[in-house]
Formats: sequence, C-alpha cells, structure tokens
Amino acid sequence: MLIYDYTNLIEENIGKQGISWNLLQERKKLLSVLHEEIKEKQKDGTFSFLDLPIIQPELDKMKKFAADAKGKWENILVLGIGGSSLGARALFQALCHPFYNLLSPTERNGYPRIFFADNVDPELMQSFLDILDLKKTLFLVISKSGTTAETLAQFLLFLEIIEKKGNLKEQIVIITDPEKGPLREISKEGFFTFSIPPKVVGRYSVLTPVGLLPAILVGINIEAVLEGAKIMYERCQKIENPAYLYALTHFLFLEKGKNIHVIFPYTQALMGLAEWWCQLWAESLGKEEKGPTPVRALGVTDQHSQLQLYMEGPYDKVITFFVPKKYRKTISIPHSFKEISAFNYLSGHTFNELIQAEQLGTEAALSKAGRPNAKFVFEKIDAFTIGEIFLCLELATVAFGLLMKVNPLNQPGVELGKRYTKALMGHPEWIAEKPNIESPKCIIAKV
Amino acid sequence: MLIYDYTNLIEENIGKQGISWNLLQERKKLLSVLHEEIKEKQKDGTFSFLDLPIIQPELDKMKKFAADAKGKWENILVLGIGGSSLGARALFQALCHPFYNLLSPTERNGYPRIFFADNVDPELMQSFLDILDLKKTLFLVISKSGTTAETLAQFLLFLEIIEKKGNLKEQIVIITDPEKGPLREISKEGFFTFSIPPKVVGRYSVLTPVGLLPAILVGINIEAVLEGAKIMYERCQKIENPAYLYALTHFLFLEKGKNIHVIFPYTQALMGLAEWWCQLWAESLGKEEKGPTPVRALGVTDQHSQLQLYMEGPYDKVITFFVPKKYRKTISIPHSFKEISAFNYLSGHTFNELIQAEQLGTEAALSKAGRPNAKFVFEKIDAFTIGEIFLCLELATVAFGLLMKVNPLNQPGVELGKRYTKALMGHPEWIAEKPNIESPKCIIAKV
Repeated sequence: MLIYDYTNLIEENIGKQGISWNLLQERKKLLSVLHEEIKEKQKDGTFSFLDLPIIQPELDKMKKFAADAKGKWENILVLGIGGSSLGARALFQALCHPFYNLLSPTERNGYPRIFFADNVDPELMQSFLDILDLKKTLFLVISKSGTTAETLAQFLLFLEIIEKKGNLKEQIVIITDPEKGPLREISKEGFFTFSIPPKVVGRYSVLTPVGLLPAILVGINIEAVLEGAKIMYERCQKIENPAYLYALTHFLFLEKGKNIHVIFPYTQALMGLAEWWCQLWAESLGKEEKGPTPVRALGVTDQHSQLQLYMEGPYDKVITFFVPKKYRKTISIPHSFKEISAFNYLSGHTFNELIQAEQLGTEAALSKAGRPNAKFVFEKIDAFTIGEIFLCLELATVAFGLLMKVNPLNQPGVELGKRYTKALMGHPEWIAEKPNIESPKCIIAKV
Repeated sequence: MLIYDYTNLIEENIGKQGISWNLLQERKKLLSVLHEEIKEKQKDGTFSFLDLPIIQPELDKMKKFAADAKGKWENILVLGIGGSSLGARALFQALCHPFYNLLSPTERNGYPRIFFADNVDPELMQSFLDILDLKKTLFLVISKSGTTAETLAQFLLFLEIIEKKGNLKEQIVIITDPEKGPLREISKEGFFTFSIPPKVVGRYSVLTPVGLLPAILVGINIEAVLEGAKIMYERCQKIENPAYLYALTHFLFLEKGKNIHVIFPYTQALMGLAEWWCQLWAESLGKEEKGPTPVRALGVTDQHSQLQLYMEGPYDKVITFFVPKKYRKTISIPHSFKEISAFNYLSGHTFNELIQAEQLGTEAALSKAGRPNAKFVFEKIDAFTIGEIFLCLELATVAFGLLMKVNPLNQPGVELGKRYTKALMGHPEWIAEKPNIESPKCIIAKV
C-alpha cells in the first residue's frame, strides 16, 4: 500500500519552517467540502478521469490488438507530445529494463523496442530515420484534439515514407477523440483507431489508450495498473487519504510562500513519473499569476548537484521523496582495499543498503536543517503501485486546483504562442498576427 | 560566435517585470570591480579552472591514450557522479548521435558505446551487468577527492568481476587528484591514471580529463572544445561579455525576487548541458539562505508541459533560451490531406522552420505577457560552440557568486547528509551520529 508520510512537514518535528499540527487539523475541514465538490465534478463528467480505473470500454480491444501485434514489430514509435507521451513514458521507464531498447528480442520476450517522438527537433527526427527499419515499425499517432502541430508534422513525414515502403493501414494506429478533430476525420479512411473519452484532457489521460496501449505493447500488465488505480480511488473515498493530504499540505506551504515543489525519487525507474508529474502540476496549477513550480531531482545523483541548494538555499521549497521499500535487484559491494577506510566501510554491504542509507541520511539532514520534506513509500515498483501513484497524484492535482480556486483542467496560457507559431508558419487564419510578433523593440541588448 | 541576447529582459521592451535600462547601466559599474577580483582569484589559483583552455598538461597523454584505445573496446563505463559525470554527459549528448549507443560499430566509426554509472540504484547497477560484456569494457573511475562513496562502491563491484574475468591494469583508468586521496593511493598499484589540477573543484572540471577523456574516447574533437573555451575566455577579458552580462542581469532579477532561473534549449542535444548547468548554478549559488533555483526545460516538448506556468504563473522566473541558428539536419514536412487546414499550413515547410517558429512564437508570447526572457544564440552546435558555452557559464557562475557575496566553489551543505549516511553504513568515525538520525519525532503523520 502506498503511504504518504508527512512527518517531516510538521512544525513540531522540524521547527518553524514546518506547518503546525493544529493548523493542519483546522484546515483539514476544507477537505470535506472539497470531497463533495470533486464527487459532483466526477458525476457531471468534468473529472471523468476518475472513472477510468473502472470504466475501460477499450480494454478488450487493446488486449486483442496487443496479442495480434506480439512478435510482429521490431519497433514502436509513439508520435505524441506532452500528455500524449509522458504517461506512457512513465510506465515504460518504471516497468521495463533500464536499457530495454538495447536488449535482444529474446531478452525483451519478443516485445518490440519503443521510442517516443515528443519533439520536432530535426536532428531527433533524422535520428529515427537512421535507426528504425520503418517497414518493421508500428506508429502510434496520439493527439486528443487531433490538431497538435508537432504530432501532425511527424505524421506527415512518416506517412509519406510508409506509403512508399510499407503498409499504411497496418502500421498506423490513431488515438484521438471519438468524434472530433482532423485525426478522427482522416481515421475514416480506414486507419485503426482507439478513442480517448471525450471529457478526459491530455494530461489526465494516462489511464486511457494514450498511456495503456503503448504500455501493453511492450508487455506491461495494464490490468494491474488499473487495479492499483482502483484501490487508490477507493481509499480516496475517505477524507484522510494520500491525495488530499499531499494537496492540502502543499497548499499550506504555498500559502507560506514556499513556491517550489520538488519530487525526488530514489530510483531511476521513477524519473519518467517525475516528468509526468511536472506537467500535471505545472499546467494544472500555474495560472492567474500563482501556482507552485515543480522540480524533479534524482536520488542519489542529485545529492551531488541540487542538495546543497535544498539544504542551505532560501526556504522556498517542499521536497517529496519517492522511496521504494524494496528494489527489484540486490547487488553486493565486494571487499577490497580493506586497509583504506574510504573503501572498508562500504564492503560487505549491498548497493540497496547504500542507497537506502543515503535517502535516510538526506532526509534526516534536511529535517535537521528545518527543510520540510515528505515521502511516498512504495512497497516496491510494479504495475500495481504505479497505478496507485498515478491516480493519487491526479486526484491531488485537481484537489490542489480547487483549494487554489483555479481550473485544473485548462491551459489558456499556451494559446498565444501557438497562434504566433501558426502566423510564422503562414497559417491563413493567423497570418495577421505576424506584425505583433516581429514588432521592433525600443532597445536591442546583445553581447 | 555565441551571442547573449537580453533584449527581452529590459523594462522598456517588456514592461515593469523587466529591469530598467538605466538601472542596468548604473549597475554595470560593479563589473569592473568584479573583473579585477576574478583576475586576482585566477592569479592566486582559486579560479584556476579559467586557465584550462590554455594550460592542458595532459592533452597529449589523452590523445595518445585515445589513439591506442581506438577499436579496442566495445564499451566505456564512466564511474562518477555529479561533477565527475555531468560534463562528459553534456559533451556526449551535444556532439554524438541522439541514439549513439544503438548504432552499429561501423556507424560509430569504430568508437565504443558509452554509459554513465552516476547512481547506486541496484536496479541500474544490475542493468550494466546485464548489457555489458565486461571483458570488452573500459572503466573510467572519476573522483577528485577519491572518497566519493557511490563511485568507490561501483569500483569495488567491477574490480571484483574484472579481477576474475579481465585485465585489471588494462581496463581501469583512474582520474583523480594528482597527489591526495584513496584513489590516488591505490593507483600506485599500477593503474593508468590522469590528474585533475589540484585547485579545480568537481563542477568546474569539464575541461580537464574528467570531461575530456570520455569525450575523446568517443571521437569528440576536444581540441576544438578547448579552442572554443579559449576564444570565449579572451572575449571575457572585456567587461562587456556574455558571461558577466548573464550573471549581472540574473543577479538583478534575483534582487527583484525572481528566484527561479530556467534554461530552455530548443534542441535535444543541449539537455545534457542544461543538466550540467543546473549543478553548477545550484551548488555554487545556493547557500546562506539565498540563491536562485535552476530549472531546465526542453523546447518544444515543454511548451506542452511547463509553458502554461511560465506564461501565467507567478512572476518568479527568468527564462533563457538556448537556440541554434542552424540545425545539423534538415527534414521536410511532406504534403498530404491538403483539404484539412490543420495539416495544410505545415506541409511544404521543414521541421527546422517549425521548431524555429515555435521558439520565436514562444519568445514573443512570453515577452507580450511581460515575462523576462533572454537567449544564447549558437551559430550551430559543434565542439567549438560547446567549448564557448562551458567557459561562459562557468565564468558567469563565479561572477554571480561574487555579486551575491557567497563562495561559488564550496558546498558545505552536503556534508551533514554524507555523515549521516556513513553513520548508517557503520563507518567507525561517524557511528556516534546514529542516534541523531533516528531520534523519535513528536508527531508521526502518515496516511
């Protein structure tokens, strides 16, 4: 069971930079109102992402598609960006081998390699052409709106190549809105498609085919992911749950001016999850001239990079460790150079003990320095616990949004840049914006 | 030539969130004093990293070692963490193929694959054992102090395996202090070694064998890197230079309360550089209860993740784009679905035009929203320009430290956590600390 441990956020434990236990109890009253509001918004469909652990109309279709695809492809290339990429990436990184794409087909149990085209950098695009045998590649084209410029540009590129060399209708799968948008429109020409439930917006869509189809295609047990999400959802029907407490504690710190929220996993496997959370947190909460800034760090690596700042910088941060109780491998540290103390105290231990000692040492040092820190403790990293944390953090995000009184589902701030881009690309509808972009500056400052 | 363009930081251009031109001119007077201080600290050896573009006692040794190693190894595994890893990673990511390790030996021009063991996660350690033929692997053991727990633990692991299966003296290279520390001590048993100049601390060591040896072993032109650094160094003998102006402008914003500094490269190739900068900035400047928090974002990817927050969140950020004028590849966007406007405006352009339009569109939108943003413009990404930016950002970091009146070379805040870790690992010298770590809390808060 996923545990949210916020002992080291409490003033009585870490001193005046913490939040007082009494204040927290007092403010917990907010949670009952919040819970009602969330239930209502779930009922009217606004928060329909909360239904996903149970309502999965396309589950059987995904299972059948994956069974049919098994052994058929050398590569999967996901064409998607932002919410159309980060969830699948998080699953892949958490649950597949750290160097999965370097393994042989046998070591991959016959599952294909997987790549994510989540940028339009021409050097990256060229590199896909260099390394992938495109005839042996399955393309997943993912965009809820069906209008995402980056994804459509990539689609056009690969479409032209496969038209010549491959089999269009076999090699392209479209994941988009069930009714609307250009991708849905062209899917009628006979492409295989999966649907994203209409009211589920991109960054809350990991538990739809957006996240689950790429995952099942590389052998991830997506039913266990959904089961974990469901158990977490059920736990969250009580007010005292990890999602609400994570949201409330961090909201109280934001009120105190701590505007930087750090997620600090002590395992490489959860860095994709941390990136996914960064999007969820930033895009959902950063609006109306407020909102926390998410930062991801990696234990132990960032002890040698960011920890100095966390220990002795300004008191503007709240840190949350992600800690697995057990790692999936155990590796011993052998004996050698026994006469040298820098080596000797390590020998005979395991890497597991070392990373755990480093996490506990860092946690204790931060607490001693009066730096608020919490942790999510995972029994271990598996499909079930990843399902738990997905649902927990999604619910925490909307809860935080409601506490802040902002809409956690929109992203109005990205529209202007998109319009300018379209204008620069000569889109007839927006071309009139061009002078606004290229307007001369009063002062040119360059060196 | 690398250009720092800070037009969109100026109040006259973007409104009241900017810094006024007059204030900036006034505060530029600080720079002459600063420049003298830096020259002095260079002379007395404190800032001896500034000599590295010219004084490279081990350059010929590195070139010879690399020539001898060519074709001999299937893999290089760098055992190092923080400053002993991030510089080489930045070079590798900027200057090698995006999927370098997936290429065939021929496609790699006979150079070995390269991996970085910058964590002690047992799952990661196991994965190296899974994928590397250790007999065909060259190990670079890097630690300035020679005491870094993570690196020594890794060293012990691979030492035991190579003792049995391989050739110790051939396969292990040690990069450490020329005189002091346990790694130097054991190197006397006959290991091949390279030295880090005594006064160059870890995070400023990319232009020593720490960064340069891994780079030359994968075919990077390290002399061009040094040449770029030298040209930048020479430019920085004038007060009006990109390093000082980057430092001064960001210092003025920190004074105005903008405590989050974002680096936002519009190319995957510079993400390693961004990570390297995050360490430099955080560990050098985050102390005495002050200092900016570095954040890295990736264009265009993070337009779909962080941009909402940057556009409409609190006014607590300064953003710096890293923009290549030219990409190393050009890819066209083909025509198709001409009747659908979401596709049609893209067709006939290149991915290069698209990413550049997105960068300009984002820059213009941020400026319009009164969000301060600057950019470093690279002629292109190559060994020379990477050398330029390394030296520029290192010098900017110490300049910023002096403006803040903190010591940019130390990291006192990480010591307590290290002590606690050693105590938990049973190190005889620190075992007495154990009760401090495990002291009971007044309140246990978990859900």
